[in-house]
This record gives sequence, C-alpha cells and structure tokens, in this order.
Amino acid sequence: MTALKPLVQALEELDAHLYGQDFLLTWDKSAAEIQSVLLVAEALRTLYRQNIRATCFESGLAISNFRDQSTRTRFSFASAANLLGLAVQDLDETKSQIAHGETVRETANMISFLTEIIGIRDDMYLGAGHTYMLEVAAALDDGYANGVLPQRPAIVNLQCDIDHPTQAMADLLWLKEYFGDLAALRGKKLAMTWAYSPSYGKPLSVPQGIIGLLTRFGMHVHLAHPEGYNLIPDVVTRADQQAQASGSTFTHDHDMDAAFDGADIVYPKSWAPYAVMEQRTALLKTGDRTALNELEATCLENNARFKDWECTEARMQRTRGGKALYMHCLPADITGVSCTAGEVAKSVFERYRLETYKEAGAKPFIIAAMMLTSRFKDPAALLAALEQDGVPRTR
Amino acid sequence: MTALKPLVQALEELDAHLYGQDFLLTWDKSAAEIQSVLLVAEALRTLYRQNIRATCFESGLAISNFRDQSTRTRFSFASAANLLGLAVQDLDETKSQIAHGETVRETANMISFLTEIIGIRDDMYLGAGHTYMLEVAAALDDGYANGVLPQRPAIVNLQCDIDHPTQAMADLLWLKEYFGDLAALRGKKLAMTWAYSPSYGKPLSVPQGIIGLLTRFGMHVHLAHPEGYNLIPDVVTRADQQAQASGSTFTHDHDMDAAFDGADIVYPKSWAPYAVMEQRTALLKTGDRTALNELEATCLENNARFKDWECTEARMQRTRGGKALYMHCLPADITGVSCTAGEVAKSVFERYRLETYKEAGAKPFIIAAMMLTSRFKDPAALLAALEQDGVPRTR
Amino acid sequence: MTALKPLVQALEELDAHLYGQDFLLTWDKSAAEIQSVLLVAEALRTLYRQNIRATCFESGLAISNFRDQSTRTRFSFASAANLLGLAVQDLDETKSQIAHGETVRETANMISFLTEIIGIRDDMYLGAGHTYMLEVAAALDDGYANGVLPQRPAIVNLQCDIDHPTQAMADLLWLKEYFGDLAALRGKKLAMTWAYSPSYGKPLSVPQGIIGLLTRFGMHVHLAHPEGYNLIPDVVTRADQQAQASGSTFTHDHDMDAAFDGADIVYPKSWAPYAVMEQRTALLKTGDRTALNELEATCLENNARFKDWECTEARMQRTRGGKALYMHCLPADITGVSCTAGEVAKSVFERYRLETYKEAGAKPFIIAAMMLTSRFKDPAALLAALEQDGVPRTR
Repeated sequence: MTALKPLVQALEELDAHLYGQDFLLTWDKSAAEIQSVLLVAEALRTLYRQNIRATCFESGLAISNFRDQSTRTRFSFASAANLLGLAVQDLDETKSQIAHGETVRETANMISFLTEIIGIRDDMYLGAGHTYMLEVAAALDDGYANGVLPQRPAIVNLQCDIDHPTQAMADLLWLKEYFGDLAALRGKKLAMTWAYSPSYGKPLSVPQGIIGLLTRFGMHVHLAHPEGYNLIPDVVTRADQQAQASGSTFTHDHDMDAAFDGADIVYPKSWAPYAVMEQRTALLKTGDRTALNELEATCLENNARFKDWECTEARMQRTRGGKALYMHCLPADITGVSCTAGEVAKSVFERYRLETYKEAGAKPFIIAAMMLTSRFKDPAALLAALEQDGVPRTR
Repeated sequence: MTALKPLVQALEELDAHLYGQDFLLTWDKSAAEIQSVLLVAEALRTLYRQNIRATCFESGLAISNFRDQSTRTRFSFASAANLLGLAVQDLDETKSQIAHGETVRETANMISFLTEIIGIRDDMYLGAGHTYMLEVAAALDDGYANGVLPQRPAIVNLQCDIDHPTQAMADLLWLKEYFGDLAALRGKKLAMTWAYSPSYGKPLSVPQGIIGLLTRFGMHVHLAHPEGYNLIPDVVTRADQQAQASGSTFTHDHDMDAAFDGADIVYPKSWAPYAVMEQRTALLKTGDRTALNELEATCLENNARFKDWECTEARMQRTRGGKALYMHCLPADITGVSCTAGEVAKSVFERYRLETYKEAGAKPFIIAAMMLTSRFKDPAALLAALEQDGVPRTR
Repeated sequence: MTALKPLVQALEELDAHLYGQDFLLTWDKSAAEIQSVLLVAEALRTLYRQNIRATCFESGLAISNFRDQSTRTRFSFASAANLLGLAVQDLDETKSQIAHGETVRETANMISFLTEIIGIRDDMYLGAGHTYMLEVAAALDDGYANGVLPQRPAIVNLQCDIDHPTQAMADLLWLKEYFGDLAALRGKKLAMTWAYSPSYGKPLSVPQGIIGLLTRFGMHVHLAHPEGYNLIPDVVTRADQQAQASGSTFTHDHDMDAAFDGADIVYPKSWAPYAVMEQRTALLKTGDRTALNELEATCLENNARFKDWECTEARMQRTRGGKALYMHCLPADITGVSCTAGEVAKSVFERYRLETYKEAGAKPFIIAAMMLTSRFKDPAALLAALEQDGVPRTR
C-alpha cells in the first residue's frame, strides 16, 4: 500500500462539504472538514515528496490581494497555486483603480472571469477584514448566480482581523505530524501567551486563530496575557465553549508562569491590546497622524511594563519535562538577535529554530488543500487519480 | 453538432489575414478580420464553458506594459494569456532601466527573446500612445528580420490615445450576444454621448473606439457632447465615412436628448475635451505642475456647467420603448454612489449593472482571440484540434 | 543526425559536476562545467528553434531577488524559468517583511519550500553581494540537511559585486557562435577597456566577469583603464594566472589605444573606480547623503578628465583589419544619442547594434542552462528525451 492510500481512504470516510465554500474562519468548518483539509494537505505533500505532479488546473488564476505586508504567506500562496497549476496574479490596490472609488462588488467580479481562487489578507482594521471578505463573497455569489461569472472563485482567508486560518491550520498539521496523529493531542496542554515585543500594533489574529482551533481537539488551552491585552471577546467565549464541548479545559488569566507550568506546547507571541486596536482602527480611518503617533508612544510605553513576559530558559523549565514544543508563526522578536528585549530568549529560539521552520513548511500544503477542497467535489478521487497517473513533477 | 462547430465553420469561410499582425486600431482590420476575432473569442469561451483546455503555448511570455493605471484590463490580459498557456511578465518602467534612457528600440528587443505577445496601454498623452506602439512594432520588425528575435511578438493595444480596441471589440461581442447576431445590429441606433463626471482628464479612446468600430455594422450612431468636448477630428470623419459606407447614419451634435431619442443602445461616458488633452499633454511634457493644476481647476469648472449631461430615468424614457441597453466600460461615476453628481443615475445603473458586468466579461476572450489570431496561421484548425483533444481544463 | 545530437554527445563526454551546485562565480567551475553550460544553452536554443517544448518542471518556483534595477536580466530570468516550466515569483524586499529585520537565514527557508531556483542580483555594495549569496546558500544547505526543505533550490548569481556570470557566459556563448567554436577563440585578442560615461557608480562586475572568464580560453586579454579605475585586485591577479595557465597573455595598463591595437574583440565599458566604490559602500551603509553627493560630484569631475576614453571610429581602425567585434552588455552610453559624450561613437554602435542585441539574446538560454544543470543529474539524457518526445512548443 502506498503512502497516499491511507490518506485517501481516511478522506473518503469523512462527511465534508467544502466544495463551493470559502475558507474564512476555522470555526465555520465541521471537525470532518478540518480533518479533510489536513488529509488533503498531507496527501499533496506525499505526492510532492514522491515527485508526482499535482496539477489539477490546466489554466486559471489565483489572485492574491494583500492589504498588508507579507513574505511567508505570499510565497506560501504562490507555491500552493503553482503546485495545483494556477497562475498567481497580484491585485495591487496601489496600482489599480480600486483606490479611485470602485466598489468592492464591481471589482470582485471584474477580476474573476477566469479566476479559481482569491486569497485575501486584510488584518489592519478591527471589524474590517472579515467584513471585507464577506462583501467580496457576496459579490461573487451575485455574479455567479446571475451568469456574470462562469465559475465561482473560492476565497481563502490569508489573515483577517478575527482569524488566521492558514496559520492555525498549518500549526495544527505540524502538531499532528510532531505528535503522530490528531488523537495524540487529546489531553495535551498548550500555552498561548502574550510576549513582550518592542513593536506595536501586531494583529490579534494569530492567538485568536490558535485558541479558536486547538480548543476543538481535546487540548487544554491556557491563554495568558497582561491585563488590558484582551482578544476579541467573542473568540475567547467560543474557545471556552469549544474546550468544554471537547472534554478539555480553557484557562484564561494573566499569569505566564502558570500557563507554562506542565505545558506540552508553548506559543509565546506578542499582540496589541484589543482596546488599542480599536482606537487605532478609528484613528486610521480619520487619518489623524498625530493621534496615531501618540497612541503608538503610549502603547510602547505600556508594553515596556511587561518586558518580563519573555519565553526564557527558566520558563521553559516549568513545562513538561522542561521540553515543551516551542511554536511561533515567525518572524519572532528574539532577545539579543532582532532586538535587545523580545518575545523569546536567543537560546530557546535557537533550540527550536528548525521546528519553527518545519511548522512554517506546512503552510503551502494547507493553502493548496484549501484551494483544492473548495474547487473539487471529490478530493479523494482526484488525489487517487493524480497518484495513478504518476506524472513526474520534474523529469 | 457541437457548440464549437458552427463557429469554426464560420471562421473557415472568412478571408482574414491576422497572422503576424499587431492589433492596434480596429479600422486597420477588414470586416472579415473583425468577425474572425469575434468568432475566435466565442470559440474560446465555448471551450472554457465546456471545461476544455485551450492551451496553445507550452511556454512563452506575454508582456504587459501598463503606462497608466488599470484593474480590469490588467486582469483581462492576465486571464487571456493564462488561458492560452503564456506567463505574464510586467514591464514596470519604474523598476526597469527604461527610466534611465534606454531607447524604445533596444528595450523592445531585450524583452522579446522568448516573448509571444506584448500588451501596451499608453493613453496619457495625445499623439503619443499610438506612436509609441508603432515604434515598438518597428523595433520588433527590425529585430526579427535581422535574426535577433526567433519569433516576432505581436502587439496588442490595450488602450492608446486614439483607440481602445479591446474595449470596443468586447463591446461589439457583447452586442452580438445580446441581440443574437451581428446582422441584428443593422438599423439599430446607438447613442454615444458625453456625460458629466466630477473628474478630469479621462481619455478619449473609449468614445473614439466605439464610433470607430460600431459605424461599420449598419448601426445608426449618434455622437453627442457639449461644445468643446470634441474627439480627435480624424476619428470623427472616419466614423462618418464608415456609417455612409455601411448604409447607415452618423449624427454628431450637442444634444444628449436627441441622441437618446429612440435609441436601442446608450453609452453615456465622460471624457476630457480634445483641446484640454492637447494642453495637458504639452504641460505634462514640460512638467509644469502649477499650470497643470490650473488647467485641472478650469476644466472641472467647465465640466460643472454640464451636470445635466446625466443618464437619468427621464432620458432613458426617451429611448426605444424606454428600454435601451445601457453600456459602460466601467467604472462608472454613479450619482449618489461614487459621487454626488455623475454620469448615470443610481437606479438606471443598478438596473443594468449585471449587463455592464457581462459586457466586461467579454474582454478576456477578446484579448485571447487577438493573441491567438496574431500568432497562429490557422485558428479554425487550432480550435477544432483543441476540441478534438478535449483535455479537461480542471480535472 | 539532428542538430541536437552533436550537442548531447559533446555533453556526455564532459566530466561536469554542476548538479546540486549554485552558480556564483565562473572561476569556481571547471572548464568542463563551463563548456557544459554552453552546450546545454545551445541545446535549449536548438529545441526552441525547432519549436520543441523544453518543460522539465511540471511545477515549481523560480524566485527573483533583484536588489538593484534591471530590465534585461529580469526578462532573461523570467524567460529562462518559463522555458523550463517554472513560475517566477519576485521577492520584493520593499513589500516584504525582510525590511523589518528578518534574518537572511530564516527568509531563505521561508521562500523555498517548493522552490527550485533563486536568482539574486546584488551588486550595489562592494564586499556585500557575493557574501549575501553565500549566506543564502548556507541557509539553504542548513534547511535541506535538516529536513526543512524537501529540495535544495539552486542559487543563480544574476550579478554580484565580484562577478556577473550570466553576462560573461552569455558573452562567451556569443563569441563561440560568432567565431564558430571555442577553439577559434585561442590566440584572439580581446580588449576589455574602461570608457567614459557621464554617469557614476557603475558596478565592476562586468569587466571582472569578462577578464575572469575569457582568460581561460587561450585569448589574449588586454585590460586598460585610467589610473585609479582599478578592479578588485584578486580578480585581476586571477585573470593573469589563468591567462598564463591557458598559454596566452594578460596585459594590464592604462592605454586604450594599445588595447585596441590588433584586437579581434573590443569591450569598452564604463565602471566606477574600486576605491570610489569602497568609499561609496561605506557611505551607503552610514546613509550620509551629503558625503555621497560630494563623492558623486568628485567622481564625475574625475571621470570628465577621461572623455577621450571613447570607442571612436579612429580607435576601431586600430583593431585587426579595422573590423574587431564590438561588444557591450547594454545599455551603452552612445555619444550623441543617449548623452553628449559617452562610451562609444554613434556610428560604431550603430554598425554593431544588431550584434549587441544578439549577444544579449544568448542570456535567457545561458540562465536556463544554469538552472537545468543545477537541478538535473543527467542533462544530456534529459535533453535527448525532450527531443525524443518532440512535443511542439506552440500548437
């Protein structure tokens, strides 16, 4: 039996309805759907490692719309699109007429006549990113239903104000690989904690994505941050409910040490306080530069009160056997490397550096899996056919 | 008989000589050639709808050279190139050494060694865009004739100062689809009118493209604009002559109501006065910012005298049965939506919104047809072979 | 026998070890390896001219990282990648988070998960470009050895501070084509000379690349420049040693006329003095704009003392039969065309213009050959298989 077969068989048994659906928030997807995406990602990685071509599209565009800077997500998206046979076309809003008042509805249709996938990253404004994606989605529905578009492109959320599903799913795939399978995650403790950074305005979507996804797999999730560094309340409530439903616990306090105590996995990561992000969003909309600078100064000053929120060797000693898996979405603020005081001690990061790289390496396959499952009715059959054909990816 | 066969048969009967030719101005092409491009576009759309791959190139570049902002043309060009198997490469003149004094002749050759198509958009300067394309064309002829280039890339005009052939041809394809066939256009009345916009410096190429193409198909074309908002005189003269030759009429006056009276199709669209564009071109060349700002202020002030040039419900009532087809190249300036007073009333636009989207949806296939007919000797045989192969575009 | 067969046979006989290797400096490669790249380039050009597809990759990225402006190298890289089936993805450091302090090591891995080739152009800082490429290479080695990367992408140097191997190799291929074969270069005299230009800060990598490569093929190389316009000393020493080893001569003086006397090939080209580049590098690092402007002024003033270093008709008369082959990497500063006084007289340039274009035309195939030989173990077998398959590149 090939390495692919068990993945295809497991996929066949899942009752997933991803075809024709956008991938915006992980909690909109059933457990079977989450598992399907993981399995397809693993199958694509298996094909890749066996040097079998995974082209599913002979033509078609994958549009990337990055409203914020990005290196790794940009390359992961490009790699995923290319793996499946799609050509990437950037929607660069500074180059395009969008900046000139075109409506979202119109543009969504104008770029989609021969488009299969639209990847959007919009995490700058609280209350805006997810809303924007829903607007694009409604416009595509309208265009498809009315015969404007010959196909309905699927939207892949490459990070919004609420969730960062490609990151959280890649992290989950990495945990599945690291611990052997999803069942092995049950009962494990994960510490999702704030960490100090000399920068400001980092989005909330990574911690939200992590607690919003990993509470569904029987893990004990401990969220810790200084007072005032809250996440969006709805997401925290959801995490709590999900943990209960999955028979595990969700702890939420302001104690980094307690979070690390006995943890199997730690994810120390900086983010801006929810209230500051709200103020910032309001100021960005009015374009008040002076107030924005003042907010930044205040916020950095406030951050500086929590320099001890660092993932140090001492804290790592508190984890299970002193050997918890360290995770980060990268780039990390490493004390003594990228800044004088940051999220993580140099020696801790260096010990787990290759693990964080492998964690990141799951992302292209996760994005490709989101693309594939949204555009093909029967991913199991498609993957089996790709293996059957066995066309070498490189000659 | 398949949906493709009649198109291929009709194509075989036309005496077209598009192979090895650039597509710069519609009036340089014979009626048979115009019809060929339409048929190839329809054939490519048919293949696409049947999910048959239309790859004609296994490798090759399609270069896009946008000297002005663009969303829809950029994506249409990228979609067309991708559909046929070409990879898009942007010639971004801010990034390249062109800004450093390279001659057009040299650059045209340097970018063309493995290039099949060069799409150029250059509509900013009166007297410059078309001239630039001819310079590039001459450079490519020279390079090909002298063994520098293994193939002669074809130029596709993505909008110049004189014509906007991809728009006009897409509009014609849309009219063919909407009214059933080209013959149905005979005797129909089209109102190509100026309309008020709070912006300034919009190119003349859309109205010029429309009157330069649609007067050839037996349509009664009525061009109306306020005094002073002239188009390039040569194009207007040509439109008049073409209308006569096709047994219809060309009317040119300053009466929007008269243009709408009994019209089957209305195309209300803002543009800058020819004289202003000439002044602007001169000022842009000298880089006189103060004079440019003054010109803009004067022009906007002048525009404001013609706020009643709006496509209102009342005006629509004047058209045939009150039900003329509304057309626009998009984005439109919609009163109460994108501006307080604009080209079209909100209710009119909203009623025809999906039609304008469908109009735009013809463009990727028109551009692909221009690419295909310029680079392949026997498009009919090629299309028939693609259908015969019947390789699914998506697995 | 097909046109391809002799190339494949010659390739089979060479003991080259290019697989899995970066292409950073020509002098790191053996004579057999240099010849292999030339043969593969010729084979790819032969396939292209026979309209046979040369796709070796069904998917995969070729990343271009241009830290300096470029038109021709950008398009050559894109053409080469596309010819072999790779999709180009730009690493634009202004868009990405690299500008935000990410380490080279991390980024190199983050962009490489499904990447085959990384092309880097970094020629702005003496002592920096080549060093940067070695850092990227070490990061890729580390990632591959530790299972982060499923394949080790190969780096192609698209110009660094020391060498410009794609240019020098393309020039060598052009000379091979022009004179019939590599053996015909033996005993020929090449004048690599400085020439006046009204610009400043041009990199040293072209003359260094030329003397670093062409001294290996039995050519008499004469390097001439005004006093003070030295190249990197190590490269000059290497050129001298190589010339001796190949049984020819390397002359280095400050006499343009002597260099042209009896030359078979002349390559007059401006560059900045080594000492100025060193000062400039130091100032660029500190960001001292005033000192940079002063340096530029001083340098241009100094340049102006050497306006007679021009490739004039009179100087061309000194060459063998007055008919030496004129070479240039383009764009040239042409007296009376792109500047009032420059590197070459208008009439000389115009007489050789098409030859310089053909010289440039070798580059896409050289880059493709560097890509192919670094990623495939048996290029000869691969090329033979591509011909055997004989899939038309265009239908």
